[in-house]
Amino acid sequence: MSEGVEWALHSCLNLAWIGPGRAVTAARLAAYHELPAAYLNKRLQALARAGIVTSVSGPKGGFRLARALDRITLMDVVTAIEGPDEAFRCTEIRQQGPGAGHPRTYAAECAVAGAMGRAELAWRRELAAQTLDDVRQRAELQAPTAPERLRRWFANA
Amino acid sequence: MSEGVEWALHSCLNLAWIGPGRAVTAARLAAYHELPAAYLNKRLQALARAGIVTSVSGPKGGFRLARALDRITLMDVVTAIEGPDEAFRCTEIRQQGPGAGHPRTYAAECAVAGAMGRAELAWRRELAAQTLDDVRQRAELQAPTAPERLRRWFANA
Repeated sequence: MSEGVEWALHSCLNLAWIGPGRAVTAARLAAYHELPAAYLNKRLQALARAGIVTSVSGPKGGFRLARALDRITLMDVVTAIEGPDEAFRCTEIRQQGPGAGHPRTYAAECAVAGAMGRAELAWRRELAAQTLDDVRQRAELQAPTAPERLRRWFANA
Repeated sequence: MSEGVEWALHSCLNLAWIGPGRAVTAARLAAYHELPAAYLNKRLQALARAGIVTSVSGPKGGFRLARALDRITLMDVVTAIEGPDEAFRCTEIRQQGPGAGHPRTYAAECAVAGAMGRAELAWRRELAAQTLDDVRQRAELQAPTAPERLRRWFANA
């Protein structure tokens, strides 16, 4: 998984803490965690395409959350950044080579792909069951002063 | 995830169907599914390092299963091929930049990493709960004649 997922998740939390009214540039969001701005901008554009953030143009432009954190799951963000493909990709090697049988043999999903798919489903279910608001609440319990420190820094930007 | 996981899983099933007594070369295992032999050999070496298969040298050498399929889980094979690292790697960006707080703030795991880790744990649990013997049984229900076809081909090799 690319580091873009980590960046995107933290950026969504940061946008929530900054507040819903304000758009923030990729450069400012990147500076807050010393990330490369151009790469973070690409991730934010991917979040915009997925409807998680909104890209606002103009002198006060930038990015803001498109919806509340309790309506954004970890699955939404992972899919926006990594794409919808399964991690395990069955290339149907059972149908290749001298052991290949009659095409009707392959009507049912390959048992290997099915087993790997069940594990991936468990992962996706857990990602879909957790919203960014759940994560925000835990983050605030751990570091109660962090949101205020963040707001001050972005206010002085 | 690399295609090596798919190759490794199928190769373990094929070794089980061939039978426990016989070592088979990477070239033969590769030919059975038209895979690139040198790349498959690397995956089989990784399985050998993980104790899933045994590498046998000599003129009748090759690979054979090191233990029965019901003692090999999907997790064993995925870890052997992909390594033990988590798919989501937390790089602790919360500690970088102007928002970074006092080091004691970071005693607890990052809430983002924790949430992603719970999903990964669900995936690993499901991989660990399924043995290759479970997969073999389902594969044989789907294609009852495939093991015999495989044995004939490897016997004539």
